[in-house]
Amino acid sequence: MKLERLVGDRFKEKPADCVIDSHALMLRGGYMKSVANGIYSSYMPLRRITHKIEQIIREEMDAIDGQEVQFPVVMPASLWEESGRYASVGSELLRFKDRNGGAYVLGMTHEEAAVHLVREYGQTYQKYPFMIYQIQTKFRDEGRPRAGLIRVRELTMKDAYSFHTSQEDLEQYYDRCHKAYERIFARAGIPETVSVKSDSGMMGGSVSHEFMLLTPVGEDSIVLCGECGYRANMEAAECIVHNVRDEVSEELKLVSTPNIQTIEDVCSFLNMPKEKSCKAVVYQKKSDDSYVILFIRGDLDVNETKLTNFLGEEVYPGVITDECGLHAGYTGPVGLTVNAPHVVLYDRSLEGTNNLSCGGNKDEYHYTGLDLSRDVPEAEYHDFAKAVEGGICPCCGKHSITISRGIEVGNIFQLGTKYTKAMNMTYLDRDGKSQYPIMGCYGIGVGRLAASVCEAHHDAYGPIWPISIAPWQVHLCAMRADNAEVRAFADKLYEELQAAGVEVIYDDRSVSAGVMFSDADLLGVPVRVIASPRNMKDGCCEISARDKSFSEKVPVAEAADRVKAIVAELLVKTR
Amino acid sequence: MKLERLVGDRFKEKPADCVIDSHALMLRGGYMKSVANGIYSSYMPLRRITHKIEQIIREEMDAIDGQEVQFPVVMPASLWEESGRYASVGSELLRFKDRNGGAYVLGMTHEEAAVHLVREYGQTYQKYPFMIYQIQTKFRDEGRPRAGLIRVRELTMKDAYSFHTSQEDLEQYYDRCHKAYERIFARAGIPETVSVKSDSGMMGGSVSHEFMLLTPVGEDSIVLCGECGYRANMEAAECIVHNVRDEVSEELKLVSTPNIQTIEDVCSFLNMPKEKSCKAVVYQKKSDDSYVILFIRGDLDVNETKLTNFLGEEVYPGVITDECGLHAGYTGPVGLTVNAPHVVLYDRSLEGTNNLSCGGNKDEYHYTGLDLSRDVPEAEYHDFAKAVEGGICPCCGKHSITISRGIEVGNIFQLGTKYTKAMNMTYLDRDGKSQYPIMGCYGIGVGRLAASVCEAHHDAYGPIWPISIAPWQVHLCAMRADNAEVRAFADKLYEELQAAGVEVIYDDRSVSAGVMFSDADLLGVPVRVIASPRNMKDGCCEISARDKSFSEKVPVAEAADRVKAIVAELLVKTR
Repeated sequence: MKLERLVGDRFKEKPADCVIDSHALMLRGGYMKSVANGIYSSYMPLRRITHKIEQIIREEMDAIDGQEVQFPVVMPASLWEESGRYASVGSELLRFKDRNGGAYVLGMTHEEAAVHLVREYGQTYQKYPFMIYQIQTKFRDEGRPRAGLIRVRELTMKDAYSFHTSQEDLEQYYDRCHKAYERIFARAGIPETVSVKSDSGMMGGSVSHEFMLLTPVGEDSIVLCGECGYRANMEAAECIVHNVRDEVSEELKLVSTPNIQTIEDVCSFLNMPKEKSCKAVVYQKKSDDSYVILFIRGDLDVNETKLTNFLGEEVYPGVITDECGLHAGYTGPVGLTVNAPHVVLYDRSLEGTNNLSCGGNKDEYHYTGLDLSRDVPEAEYHDFAKAVEGGICPCCGKHSITISRGIEVGNIFQLGTKYTKAMNMTYLDRDGKSQYPIMGCYGIGVGRLAASVCEAHHDAYGPIWPISIAPWQVHLCAMRADNAEVRAFADKLYEELQAAGVEVIYDDRSVSAGVMFSDADLLGVPVRVIASPRNMKDGCCEISARDKSFSEKVPVAEAADRVKAIVAELLVKTR
Repeated sequence: MKLERLVGDRFKEKPADCVIDSHALMLRGGYMKSVANGIYSSYMPLRRITHKIEQIIREEMDAIDGQEVQFPVVMPASLWEESGRYASVGSELLRFKDRNGGAYVLGMTHEEAAVHLVREYGQTYQKYPFMIYQIQTKFRDEGRPRAGLIRVRELTMKDAYSFHTSQEDLEQYYDRCHKAYERIFARAGIPETVSVKSDSGMMGGSVSHEFMLLTPVGEDSIVLCGECGYRANMEAAECIVHNVRDEVSEELKLVSTPNIQTIEDVCSFLNMPKEKSCKAVVYQKKSDDSYVILFIRGDLDVNETKLTNFLGEEVYPGVITDECGLHAGYTGPVGLTVNAPHVVLYDRSLEGTNNLSCGGNKDEYHYTGLDLSRDVPEAEYHDFAKAVEGGICPCCGKHSITISRGIEVGNIFQLGTKYTKAMNMTYLDRDGKSQYPIMGCYGIGVGRLAASVCEAHHDAYGPIWPISIAPWQVHLCAMRADNAEVRAFADKLYEELQAAGVEVIYDDRSVSAGVMFSDADLLGVPVRVIASPRNMKDGCCEISARDKSFSEKVPVAEAADRVKAIVAELLVKTR
């Protein structure tokens, strides 16, 4: 491919709305163009990258006995009504009517379609286990698309669904898939990706893992233990803190705290650390707007996923009205009255603690000397807190928790029988008894993976693509192609490499070296060959790596063979 | 792949709602399953076929300098408003709102997205010509999906868009693409596909061709000349008939024709051939419901595409009300009065003819003796008729027209500047003058192509896939795999062939020969190898073709090499 003919513009200026580097570089390098909020078109370089990623995924899915199928993008609402998700999933599920008024959805995930495809096939135990997968366009009507290809509305995703007759069989297959995912991310150039325990959210099921590329720009928080290797997504991470109880419990005392409402202000006014306060966080249930009052240690934050999972329903930040009986900024566990249906919950960071401050349930008053076991004997404690830096590892028990940021590049779920039960898919077991198959599902976003690799491998000038997914393998620069020697050498090398199956992007434009190199940097092709009048005079060309790991002068006669050898070597490394 | 593990059911019974063989066979063979009207999921065999078709298309598009890109499935309405098609395209364009009330469409074709992607890039003449294409899911809300994959609502399509600075350059590229299409259809196994002139419809532009697989079950009518090779879609075919004028013109005479309204009844009542009648066909314009009265020779039918193109707008069959002044069944050109805005048109089959019957514009009366030149001197004549069997070829002038049926497997359009003008895409030419690029567009439906190949190549027992797109290359049947010799031979052959890169589906189930062979027939794999206790005893296996073109006994020691040679030979033929 001649660079001169490559459709798409490359430019220097960082677009204003880019919060992460991969987004800016993929716009600056002519990889993609925004069509609407969270919706992109891809130019050829990105399409070549995603093709290669898709092929890696396909090979690894086939290697674990996956069968590639294809589900539709547009599905009838009736299918999602069978599983109950037509009602339960929020507005990220795009619902619409066709010309005849029939209700449809745009597929954001395909559990329903997978069960639909195999429920006649899988009627006897002999057919199990099996796994089907597709690589297909999906649409999620994200509220806040951001960060280029990291969080989009339309995406290409590999989604796989496995069906089993026992939990053991699912777990075995789940492990195989876990290993396949490790190979996929390693081959795509980010072997540093780690899997973390995650919350299963709207997918249902219990055990699930996310594969995370650790990077400060990631939108997920990950809880890591440097001691034992425990890893979990913040949403799923248990929070363990050391609960301190003073030897002597002070008396409960109402203190005037005029115009002092936030935890910060209260603690500073009372000259107490935040750990010695009991914070109230008020929510309301989405279903009926009833109140949920959650008490938690003052320095900790609520993990709303845990709260939602505990309640079994969605909540939103509570609005304290004059009628509800709550005193905004002064809510506490002692003498709490609410003039409406409500739930009161206690985080376990409070269990057994004493000498805390808390709201006085009376405007402009707080208590000090709260002793939870003495003053709120009826409280039950559960884990509702976000894990914290320096917290206790739920696995090894040491004070070794650190919090990192990461991009989720893949996920795997043990779904159980949620979908097969809801959609009444059954099989006859060995004893002729009807059973529900047990499912797993396994997703990877192709575009997000491309952006993640870019995030992990780039410099200020552009992406540094691993050869396994690079749009081309070799970038050939003919500087001063009007020079006969340069032209002859470069044309011949281009032909020879292409004939040998090497993917070459050939820049023979009459542009300055600066433009040529900055374009090459933006395209991020791993191997670069430079032919110039000067090095032709020495009978050489220059072969170098985009990642600067090598740079050598090679005699022109040996150039083709040397390039082929370098490409072959790089390819082996990513296999 | 072991057949035992292949997800999907195969069965004997022809599903009730299948009107064509490919539909029935692809359901019976476990290729696909209906999810909703015109929406299917694909099982692995079909996904493998469509992959191969996509790869053939990709190679041929790359060979004519195409650059693969990807446009979104979901596009903002604003993009379609730019081209004017948001308003002009009917309900086959699916329109919906996102969570924020923004208006969107599902892509049924991507001219707008193509212009959007390149309008900054293509600002100077040096960037031209270029072609971009994608292979992507599309959705057309068809009113009447039918015939399995032939007419669906959701489909995978290759759509390509070329951009040029002159009509000559477009035409040159158009020819290259025409040749690429011939190669694609030949490689996919239907070299008999012919291109026919077509109507450009909602795409705009003037010259366009459809690639047609001629088959009695096709839904398109194609006009062919056996003499000169002229070919056109019925919608675009000129209709030329010999206009006969009697030497003596009779007098115009009002005749009572009580309760006689249809052309058939009138002609039989008057004892005249239909060619001697002037038929009125009444339409109404979609835009304002005004009437369009079209007179045409009684034996001919109206080609509504020609009528729509002539009017520049859509029409629908007219409803004759009491107020409109028309007399249903008795409408004629003489003394015609309409109490509303209307248009009167004449097909050229009437020009200069005489002694015709026609409606009397009075209930229960017809005229005889109509002489159009004498009685309707103001009439202008245009071609509004459907071509007829035995008609005159517009190319060679002989009475050689025949009508065939065909499936449209691809189309190419010279679009001109319709989209670039509407969307204000311009470039500076050599002289620094601003110009609109000239576009071409080129489509192939992947699933429809698969179904068409099946339609062209099948027998009563299943598809007969050409090796270029077959789901597997070799179908290995181990009859009585419980026999040690059979098992050893078949397992070894399976390993050897797979190691050599041959795609094998291996049936080692303990089922009857009948089930084994009928499954093999339904999968339609071109080369079949049968190992059975009987032929093992002879030291042989049997290698045969699904299309019955060969069948040979081959010594077991030579089996692997022989199969590889046969596969290689077949592959060369479709390259």
